[in-house]
Amino acid sequence: MTITDSSTTLRSLINERLEALLPKREGLHFLLFEGAHYSLMLPGKRLRPLFLLSCLKDFSAPIEKGLDVACALEMIHTYSLIHDDLPCMDDDDLRRGKPALHKVYGEGQAILVGDFLLTYAFEILATCGAPQEVTALIAKAAGGHGMIGGQLVDILFEGKSIDWEILQFMYLGKTAALFSAALECGALLSGASDIEQAALKECGALFGMAFQMQDDILDVTSDTETLGKPAGSDAAQGKSNVVTLLGLEKAQALAQEYHQKALDVLPLHCHTIKSLLTL
Amino acid sequence: MTITDSSTTLRSLINERLEALLPKREGLHFLLFEGAHYSLMLPGKRLRPLFLLSCLKDFSAPIEKGLDVACALEMIHTYSLIHDDLPCMDDDDLRRGKPALHKVYGEGQAILVGDFLLTYAFEILATCGAPQEVTALIAKAAGGHGMIGGQLVDILFEGKSIDWEILQFMYLGKTAALFSAALECGALLSGASDIEQAALKECGALFGMAFQMQDDILDVTSDTETLGKPAGSDAAQGKSNVVTLLGLEKAQALAQEYHQKALDVLPLHCHTIKSLLTL
Repeated sequence: MTITDSSTTLRSLINERLEALLPKREGLHFLLFEGAHYSLMLPGKRLRPLFLLSCLKDFSAPIEKGLDVACALEMIHTYSLIHDDLPCMDDDDLRRGKPALHKVYGEGQAILVGDFLLTYAFEILATCGAPQEVTALIAKAAGGHGMIGGQLVDILFEGKSIDWEILQFMYLGKTAALFSAALECGALLSGASDIEQAALKECGALFGMAFQMQDDILDVTSDTETLGKPAGSDAAQGKSNVVTLLGLEKAQALAQEYHQKALDVLPLHCHTIKSLLTL
Repeated sequence: MTITDSSTTLRSLINERLEALLPKREGLHFLLFEGAHYSLMLPGKRLRPLFLLSCLKDFSAPIEKGLDVACALEMIHTYSLIHDDLPCMDDDDLRRGKPALHKVYGEGQAILVGDFLLTYAFEILATCGAPQEVTALIAKAAGGHGMIGGQLVDILFEGKSIDWEILQFMYLGKTAALFSAALECGALLSGASDIEQAALKECGALFGMAFQMQDDILDVTSDTETLGKPAGSDAAQGKSNVVTLLGLEKAQALAQEYHQKALDVLPLHCHTIKSLLTL
């Protein structure tokens, strides 16, 4: 089996497990589960859960050991997209090539579906047999000093000029924290050494930085159809990012630099993870 | 020490611990912690954490064993109030006698502060030494089949007529689930027997039903100043509740009936909990 086959297989496993984990769409509150299903099953790359499972694979640990944790990560990522797309946040109407959840179900329901996915992710983490250390690590990465903190700074500095320090804080929080947590969880669950765990954590953070830079670069250089979300939306909202700060060329060079750093710190035998580290 | 003294002491302990648990308001994202502090420290009754700690007291278990879990419960309750008050949900401008969070910090930030409190509650649960069973139980109560499910049905049926079945689903979810979880967690943490645990769970659910009915009754019979939130807001929003369904008199009788049932199932020696079961 080649590494590409491996990613495809892992992605199928993730999608199947996500389907299985979602509550049946019945009861007076069926629209909650229907909304969660809608957002979760939009065609996504599943990068965060893939990172986690690839880590297990590279350390020859059983995939089943991390499958539910991987799905919880994807639910947390998806809830953050739902809330970020709301009119009072990034105000994006399109997500993964389809209408954003609040365009289909309204804002109130979109907030509740996001809340549900976040809460359900922690229910899964508490019941899937993973150690509490994993839950703590994910909660921290998704929390005030991680993803939510980054998103706050993102909306606070809309229409304002920023410097590299602010940008780094924002990227580390809103994007790198969850990538880093995915690889750190993988390391924890597969019994990697402390040194390997630290390297994987660092690799995830560096790749996350590169990934967010690339995302902002594509917002300028690509089109809405290719992106599956509105191109040029950062400029339209007066958002500062690596391109507005450094210009396109320097931004591209910096993204490449972070990407290379991520590859450099990755333990040598991690071939499956390496295959995911593309921009 | 009388039982009233006891509740006052426990409430002080909760407030002190909440203050200690909140991250320092510093860093680029300090407004996140400032918002969380604002909402969490509005004068609240702290009923859910009090239920949990009163249970520990009545079973002679050390209060410290449940203090962080109690605080996590209050954070989850507070996040739900922040999101529920948003214009696209219940659209309430006033909470606990002060402007609702989104009136002070804007909607985007209010959503993020809510997300932060929910995520942070689970970080605390994963690191405070409580068994995962407690986290699972709280996640379930706060989730799609509990609090969030109840809130969804609440907004879905705005302006529509409802029957008792729908009302019961809504009350059980949006209010009773968390009260029930508070007492069940208390039972778990204090090593109560399975029979006592089941009784406490039931007691919490029955009291939660009575409490929500009383809340809806007060919305009609009380005034904004006394309530600390807008009186008459249910009627203004075309919300169906126990008063619109049964009329004031029957609603009052039903609330009393549930209240009595809660007292009836409470284990006899639970004097501290009993002192909290007032409408």
